[in-house]
Amino acid sequence: MKTEKDKIKYYNLEPMIHPKSVAIIGASYDPNKVGHIVLRNYIHGGFSGKLYPVNVNAKDDLLGLKVYKSILDIKQEIDLVVIATPAATVPSLINECGKANAKGVVVISSGFAEVGNTDLQKQLIENAKKYNLAVIGPNCLGVMDLRSRTDTMYLPSFKLDKPIMGNVGFISQSGAIGSVVLDLIDHEGFGLSSFISYGNADVVDESDILNYLANDNGTKLIIFYLEGVKDGQRFLYTIKKYGLKKPIIIIKAGATSQGATAAHSHTAALAGNTEVYESIFKQYGLIEAEDLYDLLYFAKIFETEPLCTGNRVGVVTNGGGAGVLVTDALYKNGLELAQLSINTKQNLRKVMPSIVNITTPLDIGGDADRERFKNAIDSVANDENVDMIAVIVLFQTPGADSAVVSEIINVKNNITKPLIVISIGGTYTLAHRTMLESSGIPVYDSPMAAARSLKALIDFSKTSIKK
Amino acid sequence: MKTEKDKIKYYNLEPMIHPKSVAIIGASYDPNKVGHIVLRNYIHGGFSGKLYPVNVNAKDDLLGLKVYKSILDIKQEIDLVVIATPAATVPSLINECGKANAKGVVVISSGFAEVGNTDLQKQLIENAKKYNLAVIGPNCLGVMDLRSRTDTMYLPSFKLDKPIMGNVGFISQSGAIGSVVLDLIDHEGFGLSSFISYGNADVVDESDILNYLANDNGTKLIIFYLEGVKDGQRFLYTIKKYGLKKPIIIIKAGATSQGATAAHSHTAALAGNTEVYESIFKQYGLIEAEDLYDLLYFAKIFETEPLCTGNRVGVVTNGGGAGVLVTDALYKNGLELAQLSINTKQNLRKVMPSIVNITTPLDIGGDADRERFKNAIDSVANDENVDMIAVIVLFQTPGADSAVVSEIINVKNNITKPLIVISIGGTYTLAHRTMLESSGIPVYDSPMAAARSLKALIDFSKTSIKK
Repeated sequence: MKTEKDKIKYYNLEPMIHPKSVAIIGASYDPNKVGHIVLRNYIHGGFSGKLYPVNVNAKDDLLGLKVYKSILDIKQEIDLVVIATPAATVPSLINECGKANAKGVVVISSGFAEVGNTDLQKQLIENAKKYNLAVIGPNCLGVMDLRSRTDTMYLPSFKLDKPIMGNVGFISQSGAIGSVVLDLIDHEGFGLSSFISYGNADVVDESDILNYLANDNGTKLIIFYLEGVKDGQRFLYTIKKYGLKKPIIIIKAGATSQGATAAHSHTAALAGNTEVYESIFKQYGLIEAEDLYDLLYFAKIFETEPLCTGNRVGVVTNGGGAGVLVTDALYKNGLELAQLSINTKQNLRKVMPSIVNITTPLDIGGDADRERFKNAIDSVANDENVDMIAVIVLFQTPGADSAVVSEIINVKNNITKPLIVISIGGTYTLAHRTMLESSGIPVYDSPMAAARSLKALIDFSKTSIKK
Repeated sequence: MKTEKDKIKYYNLEPMIHPKSVAIIGASYDPNKVGHIVLRNYIHGGFSGKLYPVNVNAKDDLLGLKVYKSILDIKQEIDLVVIATPAATVPSLINECGKANAKGVVVISSGFAEVGNTDLQKQLIENAKKYNLAVIGPNCLGVMDLRSRTDTMYLPSFKLDKPIMGNVGFISQSGAIGSVVLDLIDHEGFGLSSFISYGNADVVDESDILNYLANDNGTKLIIFYLEGVKDGQRFLYTIKKYGLKKPIIIIKAGATSQGATAAHSHTAALAGNTEVYESIFKQYGLIEAEDLYDLLYFAKIFETEPLCTGNRVGVVTNGGGAGVLVTDALYKNGLELAQLSINTKQNLRKVMPSIVNITTPLDIGGDADRERFKNAIDSVANDENVDMIAVIVLFQTPGADSAVVSEIINVKNNITKPLIVISIGGTYTLAHRTMLESSGIPVYDSPMAAARSLKALIDFSKTSIKK
């Protein structure tokens, strides 16, 4: 173990993720060029550090900033360099970054191994290694951190909904998938610490990024879109080290052999054998997502809910049919309906109208209002036979409104068990969902997503508490 | 076969679904009571037939209408009676409806077998049979038809987004699930013909409703939430008769034995053995949905796309990672990536920039614009090796905008193969999704949902074209 550990070194990404100074090579005067957009985003994004636009054809100021012909002309400490110039120019620019003692580089440019230019990629790697320079990319979006307000993304800002600050770290090998998930984070009601899109992983790879986020106090859990790893030993060592330290929710694209082929042409990744990945993830406590939405669904339960090893779910519902669907979903995922204690049943019989069957799932009726929800959730949540609580609120019914929302929040604040809400619907429902999620209650719009998320929480809890 | 057919008779639901006159028993003066809400909804909903409020305590006019003490006092032809009075009063009211020669009754009231009042339920059934009266319910929402503007739902109208008129018929045993799905229909971009929630199915059952919608020219396909059937022989006969006539997309709740128990306490349904249902659905061409969203996902592909038995999917994408995920999803569902013909490849090589790999899935790059999308989709869609087309548009990228939307619509209008779009994202993406769906192009927000929907289309096409 000791020798293995000695061999594994990680790049220090801290200066790149919380930079005090950023140089942008390829900062164009043309407002439609990537380098210009990146610079503009830094200025408008409220970045408070130093900014150095670099352009070989430097002449006038750009957006109020002095432009340098070369990074070597800056002669100041540079934490992060963003390169947004054609692929062919990149290797020699990496050399200049090394000479300028930059602490890290994000190469946005594409046109390397993913389109067959393996020689160019080799050159880039050689030059970076020569200076022991941390390089993220090429063929990536780079880094977005909501604390430092660094953001190397060149996408038009009106095209995606920016996440709010939170404590979910997000790693994506693919830039486009990265932007799609970022766009959805706010809709799913949680917030982001750092986002890192690393593309071809020529120098800095997934293991360096996992190491960084696993040790970052602002990151409580990690979501991760992976196409393939290049250095398997390094990756294994890393997930073994961190898999149980923080929840790592991972989607492995290229799960079929045809998908793996597509992944190779995308980021030149060797996708590898699915079964091998699956068993490794399981062994080291990583939580595998089956599709993109799983990343979001699982993230929100891990962000707010406590760990829990028991699988007895107390279900309260104001819709019988939804209760049936949730029951099916729970059992399909190896969970159980909690059987209420005699004490709880007696209490419920006293406070529920006679039309309500005191059974499980507890269907409190389509006319259930604030009071009935409060009594039901309170009793079920405090039953010793209940490990976790799922409250189904169909806001289409007459009695379900924002008063019910506030009762759920009240109960939640007084218990230490996981509690989730399942609500499915359109405009009115979505408004109430937002209220619940703003108060730190995960809401699911499908019984299956809810059950899968509870299952993920239990699985991780069992592994991490055992070890 | 002949004798079997002779035994099966269906209630005629036409007068109930397109009524010219509606009586509402329990039309209260209290604006919060169900009977009042139903009457108000009829008036505000633009119903153009006659309306007769009935209230045993009739005194003044109600909402401008004369109120009758009993349905027997009306002495006019009555197509539909809605009953919204306490359960105990219902059986004798059914008798009165029979005497008044009403053509059909919707009983909204609950409190029958689903809470153990089996005697009351028996009485209701006996009285209905005595007059051969079509009764929908009890314990249901009843009927909504967008053509006749009949709507017996008592839910507050601001709580759910009403669907637009279309050609999907929707049957739901559960009222709450019915309201949830109705609330989502408009968000999924298709429209409704009739919605029928039938609750305890005491008299009119799922087979009567299937028979009605299968023969309704305004209904192209049927979506169906089922908990359990009471008369298996009748149901088998009906789905055998209609399973291949129109697509019937069905979700069977109570798929686990625990879910089945929950279903029994909900609508007193015997949920039955899952494997039996599954094999029967398969045999008769019904399309089984695994969750509520499947109902919506499958409905929109069947509403707009032609039948198709080939499983070779041509994929065009502006995001490499999304191409990988879609490839995985296709193969997990038994579909294939179409291999482009040499001719198509040569054409594409001419019009695509050199950075684009001419392979499959065809990744046209994160900078793809209107022109590149047009050329790519046009070539792929017209390739003889392609049976169906999936276009992935990540609207987060710089070149993807409403011009791309219009190119997709143009191509679609000139081909006869199924074409779907996959777009995942927030506000900007949703706006473009609405444009596409308004033009009759199904859009999916998850690769798995898209692949499952294509698979459902192929499965139904194969069965129905073979037979």
